[in-house]
Amino acid sequence: MTEKTAAIIRAAKGRLTEPMVGGLDRYDSRTVETKLAAVHAFDKAHLVMLVETGLLGRRDGALMLGALRDMETEEGAVAARLRIGGALHSGEYYLTERLGAKLGGFIHLGRSSADLAGVSRRIVLRAAILSMTRQLIAVQLAVLRAAPDYLDCIIPAYTHGQHAQPTTYAHWLMMWANVFQRDTQRLLDGFDRLNLSPAGAAVATGTDFPIDRARVAALLGFDGILVNTMDATLSNDVFAEYVSIISLLCANMGRLAEDLLFWTTQEAGLALIPDRFCDTSSIMSQKKNPSFLHELRALGAEASATLLLVGNIEAGTTGQSVHARKTAENAVWALIGKVATRLPQMADLIAHTKIDAQRARQLTENSWSQATDIASALVRHLGLNWREAHRVVSILVRLATERRLSPRQVDLALLETALAEAEIAASDLGSFDIAAAVDVQAFVERRTNEGGPAPSAVMSNIASLRNTATAQQTEMEAAEHAIVGASQELESAIEMIISG
Amino acid sequence: MTEKTAAIIRAAKGRLTEPMVGGLDRYDSRTVETKLAAVHAFDKAHLVMLVETGLLGRRDGALMLGALRDMETEEGAVAARLRIGGALHSGEYYLTERLGAKLGGFIHLGRSSADLAGVSRRIVLRAAILSMTRQLIAVQLAVLRAAPDYLDCIIPAYTHGQHAQPTTYAHWLMMWANVFQRDTQRLLDGFDRLNLSPAGAAVATGTDFPIDRARVAALLGFDGILVNTMDATLSNDVFAEYVSIISLLCANMGRLAEDLLFWTTQEAGLALIPDRFCDTSSIMSQKKNPSFLHELRALGAEASATLLLVGNIEAGTTGQSVHARKTAENAVWALIGKVATRLPQMADLIAHTKIDAQRARQLTENSWSQATDIASALVRHLGLNWREAHRVVSILVRLATERRLSPRQVDLALLETALAEAEIAASDLGSFDIAAAVDVQAFVERRTNEGGPAPSAVMSNIASLRNTATAQQTEMEAAEHAIVGASQELESAIEMIISG
Amino acid sequence: MTEKTAAIIRAAKGRLTEPMVGGLDRYDSRTVETKLAAVHAFDKAHLVMLVETGLLGRRDGALMLGALRDMETEEGAVAARLRIGGALHSGEYYLTERLGAKLGGFIHLGRSSADLAGVSRRIVLRAAILSMTRQLIAVQLAVLRAAPDYLDCIIPAYTHGQHAQPTTYAHWLMMWANVFQRDTQRLLDGFDRLNLSPAGAAVATGTDFPIDRARVAALLGFDGILVNTMDATLSNDVFAEYVSIISLLCANMGRLAEDLLFWTTQEAGLALIPDRFCDTSSIMSQKKNPSFLHELRALGAEASATLLLVGNIEAGTTGQSVHARKTAENAVWALIGKVATRLPQMADLIAHTKIDAQRARQLTENSWSQATDIASALVRHLGLNWREAHRVVSILVRLATERRLSPRQVDLALLETALAEAEIAASDLGSFDIAAAVDVQAFVERRTNEGGPAPSAVMSNIASLRNTATAQQTEMEAAEHAIVGASQELESAIEMIISG
Amino acid sequence: MTEKTAAIIRAAKGRLTEPMVGGLDRYDSRTVETKLAAVHAFDKAHLVMLVETGLLGRRDGALMLGALRDMETEEGAVAARLRIGGALHSGEYYLTERLGAKLGGFIHLGRSSADLAGVSRRIVLRAAILSMTRQLIAVQLAVLRAAPDYLDCIIPAYTHGQHAQPTTYAHWLMMWANVFQRDTQRLLDGFDRLNLSPAGAAVATGTDFPIDRARVAALLGFDGILVNTMDATLSNDVFAEYVSIISLLCANMGRLAEDLLFWTTQEAGLALIPDRFCDTSSIMSQKKNPSFLHELRALGAEASATLLLVGNIEAGTTGQSVHARKTAENAVWALIGKVATRLPQMADLIAHTKIDAQRARQLTENSWSQATDIASALVRHLGLNWREAHRVVSILVRLATERRLSPRQVDLALLETALAEAEIAASDLGSFDIAAAVDVQAFVERRTNEGGPAPSAVMSNIASLRNTATAQQTEMEAAEHAIVGASQELESAIEMIISG
Repeated sequence: MTEKTAAIIRAAKGRLTEPMVGGLDRYDSRTVETKLAAVHAFDKAHLVMLVETGLLGRRDGALMLGALRDMETEEGAVAARLRIGGALHSGEYYLTERLGAKLGGFIHLGRSSADLAGVSRRIVLRAAILSMTRQLIAVQLAVLRAAPDYLDCIIPAYTHGQHAQPTTYAHWLMMWANVFQRDTQRLLDGFDRLNLSPAGAAVATGTDFPIDRARVAALLGFDGILVNTMDATLSNDVFAEYVSIISLLCANMGRLAEDLLFWTTQEAGLALIPDRFCDTSSIMSQKKNPSFLHELRALGAEASATLLLVGNIEAGTTGQSVHARKTAENAVWALIGKVATRLPQMADLIAHTKIDAQRARQLTENSWSQATDIASALVRHLGLNWREAHRVVSILVRLATERRLSPRQVDLALLETALAEAEIAASDLGSFDIAAAVDVQAFVERRTNEGGPAPSAVMSNIASLRNTATAQQTEMEAAEHAIVGASQELESAIEMIISG
Repeated sequence: MTEKTAAIIRAAKGRLTEPMVGGLDRYDSRTVETKLAAVHAFDKAHLVMLVETGLLGRRDGALMLGALRDMETEEGAVAARLRIGGALHSGEYYLTERLGAKLGGFIHLGRSSADLAGVSRRIVLRAAILSMTRQLIAVQLAVLRAAPDYLDCIIPAYTHGQHAQPTTYAHWLMMWANVFQRDTQRLLDGFDRLNLSPAGAAVATGTDFPIDRARVAALLGFDGILVNTMDATLSNDVFAEYVSIISLLCANMGRLAEDLLFWTTQEAGLALIPDRFCDTSSIMSQKKNPSFLHELRALGAEASATLLLVGNIEAGTTGQSVHARKTAENAVWALIGKVATRLPQMADLIAHTKIDAQRARQLTENSWSQATDIASALVRHLGLNWREAHRVVSILVRLATERRLSPRQVDLALLETALAEAEIAASDLGSFDIAAAVDVQAFVERRTNEGGPAPSAVMSNIASLRNTATAQQTEMEAAEHAIVGASQELESAIEMIISG
Repeated sequence: MTEKTAAIIRAAKGRLTEPMVGGLDRYDSRTVETKLAAVHAFDKAHLVMLVETGLLGRRDGALMLGALRDMETEEGAVAARLRIGGALHSGEYYLTERLGAKLGGFIHLGRSSADLAGVSRRIVLRAAILSMTRQLIAVQLAVLRAAPDYLDCIIPAYTHGQHAQPTTYAHWLMMWANVFQRDTQRLLDGFDRLNLSPAGAAVATGTDFPIDRARVAALLGFDGILVNTMDATLSNDVFAEYVSIISLLCANMGRLAEDLLFWTTQEAGLALIPDRFCDTSSIMSQKKNPSFLHELRALGAEASATLLLVGNIEAGTTGQSVHARKTAENAVWALIGKVATRLPQMADLIAHTKIDAQRARQLTENSWSQATDIASALVRHLGLNWREAHRVVSILVRLATERRLSPRQVDLALLETALAEAEIAASDLGSFDIAAAVDVQAFVERRTNEGGPAPSAVMSNIASLRNTATAQQTEMEAAEHAIVGASQELESAIEMIISG
Repeated sequence: MTEKTAAIIRAAKGRLTEPMVGGLDRYDSRTVETKLAAVHAFDKAHLVMLVETGLLGRRDGALMLGALRDMETEEGAVAARLRIGGALHSGEYYLTERLGAKLGGFIHLGRSSADLAGVSRRIVLRAAILSMTRQLIAVQLAVLRAAPDYLDCIIPAYTHGQHAQPTTYAHWLMMWANVFQRDTQRLLDGFDRLNLSPAGAAVATGTDFPIDRARVAALLGFDGILVNTMDATLSNDVFAEYVSIISLLCANMGRLAEDLLFWTTQEAGLALIPDRFCDTSSIMSQKKNPSFLHELRALGAEASATLLLVGNIEAGTTGQSVHARKTAENAVWALIGKVATRLPQMADLIAHTKIDAQRARQLTENSWSQATDIASALVRHLGLNWREAHRVVSILVRLATERRLSPRQVDLALLETALAEAEIAASDLGSFDIAAAVDVQAFVERRTNEGGPAPSAVMSNIASLRNTATAQQTEMEAAEHAIVGASQELESAIEMIISG
């Protein structure tokens, strides 16, 4: 970067008379590297609009747009902008270097740094959100594909960290299909708020040049403009909203990781994940550390911290946060980058994790997780009310535990003792099918109510979620197509200007 | 609470053999006080469904539903449930006390504590969200009503905490109309996810009794059920989602407060808020502390902390968080209560805050906030490009500052000096209308582009937002009506059962 | 509270002309309930000092101090202050009610609300910290008493959530002794900063009355004064510092709970905690939910949220946070209250938790956690370097895993295969004691280096920590005695004034 | 990095059979770049100890230590370790490359990755803390040097964001001297806990080789060892403690920035900061944005987010966090780097900020900030009690405000009206010196109590803090000298081994 371009905005002999102290980084393109491609697109759309509205002569516009096209073909837009410096103003820096200050100085008419910052923020975020949506739908589909293989694979459901009741791994997987369906939907639901253009709002009041805000918005693939110009540049709640949504997603990814971390302990021995997700130790040769799961888990922590950062930086009077937003943004881009790396890996993980069905079933069976249905059976067989049956089984479990009997070892005699301790007359216990009552497979198969773990109920949920995933895909692709279309329109408009 | 009712769930002689240590609070209704009315409704809907599906005899159901009605008329449902204890199980405790253990013990058939916790959580949250939506629409309308009075009231717009450009107080108000319109929309957008019933999911796998989940959902005004039973009770992302949305709202309220806190300083002297929002000091008699604004500001901090609490408590394996959710929920109810108190007060504040228009205009004028348009005028008058004009004005401001001249005191001679220092040939400066270029009123009036501060642009935005507010009101009221309708259907169903 | 007392500070016909909107709570003693006893002490010390410096007549002082003593004996100071209202000014309210406005109006001479807020904040916090210190030392001692019982109780040490190496439960306990020793020391280390008096700093500049700040400090048991008067009332970093320290402690308590939560799962079956720390389910009779551990775990989350709240509320210009500090403080008092409840219960838990030594040993043995020492043995026996030995064992574990052999089933032949696959010439393997190399008990016993799990090393650490605990106790008690002494001096001074 | 070195730890044909998925980064030195110099020192100290204890032959040790010295002189240790890869194991990678696997494989005997991670974490953090201490003392001294220039410079003190009372800029500066004195002391107070060596704790249980933990500790400049080996590697509360302390510091820096941000607004016009701390706008030529202050302010937000990250990543069972610690650490190193950049700049800022004394005094005078002392004067002159005087002044301020009179324009007649409205008989008002009562300079000069804004009191505080700063400097330098001494001892020991 030449001395001359360095001084473009902090004008020589101007308002400020000293060079800045170190580390304020205002014209270092690296501070906004993630946004440079979007800045490039905005530079082009803005120039097209300036020409179309007559604010810039066609010939000058053609020279400038031509130079921006050369930038793409010669160096690549981002590389050139990193080289030349200027950060958000890298377009002006480049045009000044290439075409001279007289022409370069025209590009910024009718817009501001805040426009550049806001437009590129939304373009980067929107692309990331659509891509994340695509990846999340793929995760959903991976779950939906895996679930049918595990319809009969009994595992415990937990509450309070303890075995609650028997269910199946397919049922557990379908919880995640539902969770990620909601995460996907959230990404789509806010898109109407996100895909609006601040361009032309300038710093807060717009401009007195008769620019065409709608045209720039259309050329950049936005669905419309953010109307109030102060709101457009100084409010940042939509950015924070999406960080919240991503944070919810990361929390969910973290929870899935926690479940698998637990199931891959030596204590549980319930799940087996491929070695590619694991690392070993420099001294403990036996080690198979599920490092990928730890990364997912940490993602929740990082997302939470990033959300806090965004919120804290925005606190204060309107406009106070403008400088520090780049700090928050860079943290958000880093987080989004990690999510983008991890989502397909998570789909791979879900597809290839194996359950030790025998161990899982044994654990489920021996922990008295089927106790609820012993009570149900007593209600049906003896006509007890729920609370009576619950109390009888509570006593039964204590008696069995004291006698070190597993559920399958319990007989009617012990049940009669429990009824007696509960002071309930036990008529007609002879035909009570205790084996059925403690059978964890039967437990699951009885649960055919909607959403339950019985195979039929799970299959029905799979079919239903496959439909919503398809609908989400359609919505996402429509948004992508509209953006691609706008990009083509922008190039056509440039062509028209260049070709005169 | 009698010994007997105390022991309902922790059965005598049962699984656990010691009383709990202090402060675990499991059957103290006060720990779930906010949810008791919703628990009451669920108790009724569940009993109706049990009778309708034949799982409970009509006669027994009639006795139990009758008792719950007596509870309403004799003590009030919440008061009775506070008195009797039992927390989520206060219905069973009450029925046991009143009708005996034989009948009371029936109510819990086919559901679990997790159902009670989840259903009541969603009912309480849904009511709070609809009420908050109503209040937020009222805030929007207060802003829309106030704005037309301030179309010509010049104030500074700020970036980096410094004067940026002139705008109007109406334009600033309209930023908030747009902000709160988005906040309102977020509350509505998630409602589809929120208004789903977990009832019948029991603890995670549903039940083997043939209950009717859809019927309970309908009787409680839900739009449908949360299908997967594990997801229904153990996922809590929709709760966290709404805390995120409320947190965004509180951050916005906090920012509005920060703007007004700044404008009510002695330094600014720009805004005057009614004494009812203020407090004084025990020693400094002059004090008019804007305590209400400090409460709004603190709300942002509280919301952020509450969101973090919710997220951290949910971290861990699926089902691990069940116990501690009540801690998170109580923090959320407290936060929601504060928002409910503050929103109407904020509408009142907006309606009655006065701006010192003379002081505001003077501040705006003397800070060189109009500099941008001096450059614009130079572009138009001298045919400079933007960067040249910007540099000239930068030098001009420095020169004026050195000479302690205010914008209105600057003359063409100084402008010529600036041009000379910028090494730009200043032909034809004679007719340059410097007075117009520094006129802050003219600055604003020139900004007629969409969303700008010119009165016409502001009025157009007001009209548009009035329409969206009306649409939001319609959507919110439709949701409310559906809930009221369901409640009537529930009472009719009870009537039918009682009357046989 | 009478109309008259209500108007004491918000003077009739004064600066503010409207009553406040709802929920600003300025003179409601309940908003500062935790601090009322400390406010009472400050009222007394301040009056004593006013009399001693001649700013208040002895006779008037005697009447006022006498009234405050009557308050103690008649109603109790806190109860009276809750009844009369006035919050921080409850002393003035009470004296005004009892002795009339003429006398009551004297008490506030030479101090401010900020003095009252700051002095009482420090007195409450200091008492809580000393009490917490005492409880934490008791926790340390509980750990030190339990450890000797488990010197030979083999359990796995974990990294990455996976078995790392064998250790003992005593060694794990001693980690906690060290952790809580540091937590205790932090509470003591900051005490010099905490136990300083802001009294007499008034709102920020002190007063022009010749008060005696040092005397008030001494009468209240402070070690000195916070010198700079602006710093004394407007800085709040020492408060935040202690919330940080408590947050570290809560995080540690949460981690201990996580370890036990894991060990009490059905999957681990390693630890057994008494029923009094557990709860059961309304439908799953088998449930023994370790609710106490969930409370400890949640404490970490609450502490983190509270710390964030304190930090966020303090953000802003100096003095901006004054109003909202009560919100932060009440959250902190609530947190401290929970910690005070949980610490002794945690000591009880540690004392009575049982380990299933056989299960723990079996788990440790079969997970190849002893692999490190097979490598060590190879280094010693074959003269391999560490990396070679590590590689051989890595291959050995894979081979054994493929063949489903447990560590004890591995023979020299398999080890030779591993050596061959590692391309290491295996001379002299015949005398290799593979049984010793896989023996987890021997693994532990070999670790006699300082701090290791060998019984002798553990016993040595126990002895050492017993000494530091004693030293901490001495330091804590010295601080407590000084405060008690000051309180006696205050009463003597009052006696002197009253008795003339 | 060669294939061979890549496979050092994840042994070929070993326990894990697949390469890792992308982005797990285990052997990429860049993930631990900040720690490589410390890793280098540990490698040397560990080798010295292995030789000294006879665990490694002198000749082999000499070769290896010689190679590490060559590394320093040929490439630089950090550069070489970045090139060779291996991250924490870059020493082993380097030695293997240079001396072959046979020798390279010896270095890791008797230690683990956890040792490397923990030792280097503490060395990096300790150096950062001592450097930060030095910088903070320089900040203190900058404040102490600036304060005497502003002993008579009247500014307002604020509470609730409103003028409270007159004080001086020197008094405000001295608040910061006290604040930073505490921040410095916190850094020093924890140093005893920080400067302990985990080396030799290996992964959690130490090693069965007879290493000398104390010797390694001494060679690395630690004051001793972390005894319990599980605690030494798996507890991380001291790291979190220092992040808390840094977070408190950053919050203080942020508050200082907020004060100056406010005072540099056009509304306040009270403070002038040098242009080197400011930036301008691409369209608003007048702009002087105090970007440095915004960086300081954002630092508070970043620190808070980093602290949360550290806490959340550590949550979970003991050892669960090991993998993700590098994520937390890198965030902490980045934060510390920013603090290191900003502290000296902040000292520069404090030294060169100018106050507009005339504007500041005028603002202070006209806002009725002197009201407290009018009440004081009335107490002295009329013998009113404090509350009476306070009420009279409250009425007086209202009357003057209604009549638009400034404090200096108020006369005895108006005071009499106020007394009458307060229903207080105003005898003897004739000689009341109202001019003195409203004089802000006199207000300040009367405040000679300890810690007050009177010049004498400020000068006394300056002298006292200069002493504590000197004492802190001595303590910090002693710690630095000890570390330098250890480093020399390490080199001597290496010399001894190499020279045989």
